[in-house]
Amino acid sequence: MQPVLVVGSVAFDSIETPFGVAGRVVGGAATYFAVAAAHFTDVRMVAVVGEDFTDEQMGIFRGRRIDLTGLQQVPGETFRWKGKYSEDLNDRESIYTFLNVFEEFQPILPPVYRASPFVFLGNIHPRLQLEVLDQVESPEFVVADTMNYWIEKTPEELHQVLTRVDALVINDAEARQLSKESNLVKAVQKLQAMGPRLLIIKRGEHGVLMFGPDGFFAVPGLPLNTVRDPTGAGDTFGGGLLGYLAGCSVVNHDTLTRAVIAGSTMASFSVEAFGLERLLCVTSDEIQQRFLEFRRLTSFNEL
Amino acid sequence: MQPVLVVGSVAFDSIETPFGVAGRVVGGAATYFAVAAAHFTDVRMVAVVGEDFTDEQMGIFRGRRIDLTGLQQVPGETFRWKGKYSEDLNDRESIYTFLNVFEEFQPILPPVYRASPFVFLGNIHPRLQLEVLDQVESPEFVVADTMNYWIEKTPEELHQVLTRVDALVINDAEARQLSKESNLVKAVQKLQAMGPRLLIIKRGEHGVLMFGPDGFFAVPGLPLNTVRDPTGAGDTFGGGLLGYLAGCSVVNHDTLTRAVIAGSTMASFSVEAFGLERLLCVTSDEIQQRFLEFRRLTSFNEL
Repeated sequence: MQPVLVVGSVAFDSIETPFGVAGRVVGGAATYFAVAAAHFTDVRMVAVVGEDFTDEQMGIFRGRRIDLTGLQQVPGETFRWKGKYSEDLNDRESIYTFLNVFEEFQPILPPVYRASPFVFLGNIHPRLQLEVLDQVESPEFVVADTMNYWIEKTPEELHQVLTRVDALVINDAEARQLSKESNLVKAVQKLQAMGPRLLIIKRGEHGVLMFGPDGFFAVPGLPLNTVRDPTGAGDTFGGGLLGYLAGCSVVNHDTLTRAVIAGSTMASFSVEAFGLERLLCVTSDEIQQRFLEFRRLTSFNEL
Repeated sequence: MQPVLVVGSVAFDSIETPFGVAGRVVGGAATYFAVAAAHFTDVRMVAVVGEDFTDEQMGIFRGRRIDLTGLQQVPGETFRWKGKYSEDLNDRESIYTFLNVFEEFQPILPPVYRASPFVFLGNIHPRLQLEVLDQVESPEFVVADTMNYWIEKTPEELHQVLTRVDALVINDAEARQLSKESNLVKAVQKLQAMGPRLLIIKRGEHGVLMFGPDGFFAVPGLPLNTVRDPTGAGDTFGGGLLGYLAGCSVVNHDTLTRAVIAGSTMASFSVEAFGLERLLCVTSDEIQQRFLEFRRLTSFNEL
């Protein structure tokens, strides 16, 4: 079992969905990733919070397999985001985004972090992703996330990132946008030519598609009775994926498919409640049970 | 092996996609259904065409396991439709719809059709669906398709249909619209309370979800290198589904899951070329191969 390093945001989120509201709860890509990945392996966090981040809020990470040595606390306010979801939860609008302490963030890896074999570059400025990568000594498996904003605003730095990662995790609209190709299979081939040999396409309630050197793999979303808040589902998926993978002795098609299921499993819990609520209390038994539900969901016999 | 009865449109379609155009090609729900289902069992067609439907065009059905006794040819023009697809093929606009001979269509079942155990009520006016159903003696398994137009315009007749069918095949937006419920699991429960014990939700490139009395089942869409024209994919899916099922000795969760894969398999061929082009020449070997591709697509091992 190997540790996973993650860089990304720790934030205060305000969330509005048809099923309720949550005000100023702890969120952010690195948070969701870390809480999910820590169910499977040790997590090393690289992020920044402001003076307004309380000791009680820090307690969310303590008692879990999350190393906070790389979590800087600096003068100023913590990153804040507010989002509002549509009736069917498939669209959301950002009401505001205040970068705050993230604006001047300079990721510095504690010495022990530098030997991290598994690295997740959360959805932040590609320049910061590169700065983190520069500080890791011979990483074995690097996964990057990104979004439409960086595809549009910082294409050159993003392309530099792509040449240095093993896997890219993005949604289908972003894959089409980044490749300028509407057919998803062709889009993936173009993205693979840019660097990552592995593409993992997130499709929200429709599940996940993985394209690797040994063929593709797909898993549908698990139909859920209760979906209250999709915030952080993608980062939770990433945490389950890479956390599970870091616990395997080898990265191949077999372990990658199971990692995709582990990620989907964690994400399916995350969306059932607001913010981190469900993810913080999920048990190993529940994870195991839901993994089996994914098996039943897609099982069929020969013709 | 049992025969399948289908009622629906036979049409002249004009199609425009980012990958080309097709002018006045033979299409329609009953056509796609019949050609797909005939790969698995005998099909009995109930539909109407006009005088402009040539003997050569009729030849599309001949030489296949399709009984045309119930295909009326009457004075007037055949149903015509023109559609234009968006860049990513997920949306389409109807440029025109001329019902023509369909406007006065009165489905009359030839005597031999009346004992059909498997019935597919294609996407037509629910009144016509009921008229067909009234003429079938003790059907064993009835599947209905419908669309937003009938949900809005003829809700009462549609609800009558629902009380008399075993399965409803619709897309996810229609399931939400018909049930007035945005959560898909809850939407399906509401729809089941209206009549059909089985719900099959089509999600285009995202695949298919099935909700039955013995749990649910999902299959992702097969990632395809070439997708040129999605016209008829849903009806082709229906044909593969019910055609396969009619070839099984029993309808249960096991045969239903395989029927969903058979339907998805046929639909995956249909979209590769314009109109019926690909579907008319697909071989049994190719069908068998692609069924196996669906297995590989979703296979993974235990945790």
